[in-house]
Amino acid sequence: MHTPAVRFRVDFGRDRAVGPGKIALLEHIARGGSLSQAARELGMSYRRAWQLLDSLNGCFVEPVARSVRGGRGGGGATLTALGRQLIRAYREFDAEMQTRAARRFAPLVRQGRSLTRARRPAPRLQDR
Amino acid sequence: MHTPAVRFRVDFGRDRAVGPGKIALLEHIARGGSLSQAARELGMSYRRAWQLLDSLNGCFVEPVARSVRGGRGGGGATLTALGRQLIRAYREFDAEMQTRAARRFAPLVRQGRSLTRARRPAPRLQDR
Repeated sequence: MHTPAVRFRVDFGRDRAVGPGKIALLEHIARGGSLSQAARELGMSYRRAWQLLDSLNGCFVEPVARSVRGGRGGGGATLTALGRQLIRAYREFDAEMQTRAARRFAPLVRQGRSLTRARRPAPRLQDR
Repeated sequence: MHTPAVRFRVDFGRDRAVGPGKIALLEHIARGGSLSQAARELGMSYRRAWQLLDSLNGCFVEPVARSVRGGRGGGGATLTALGRQLIRAYREFDAEMQTRAARRFAPLVRQGRSLTRARRPAPRLQDR
């Protein structure tokens, strides 16, 4: 039986949504210190990664990441304190929501437990 | 200042997601007792509404709605107990998530409060 899960994004205003993709990008930047490496690891173009990060920086008054000149590979990116806080807040919220969703929606799934092995799970609405 | 909000859907398994659109459809069916009326009210085609409801019925072992023959307009739809429970659980969870998101993410927004009137909110990442 599948545990109910939540997929979500947090909306900080008009065109300012933060979802799992942007958070994963920040996490990869935090680990590798490089936007191009993060892009490669996530299987996206450098251009796409740059756009996501630019959009993230536009969500808040302060930036979540800064570019760093020099260093290995000729330039990297580093998270600001706000960027690190955002990851932490998002991941904590995520864990909390998954727990609460599983608890709240499990009774709806359990109602028909004896039938969950059926191939076609529910009688469908009759067309008219 | 915009209060952080969450947009979400609940995932009950592979291809079994329930989001705000499907819940709104159930709520309109509950009020009007008719799928075609619900479709009109939501500005969608009858075909689209039927597909959404069919998909919802496929999310669970029991159906969330049944078609009713006869009556005004020659046939309607009515929610099952499971359908009514689903609306209630979703709306309660929604309210809870919005409260918790506002509380958890507000500090990130507040960090730069003095600048929130700026047209261009954040220094952007430098391209390289």
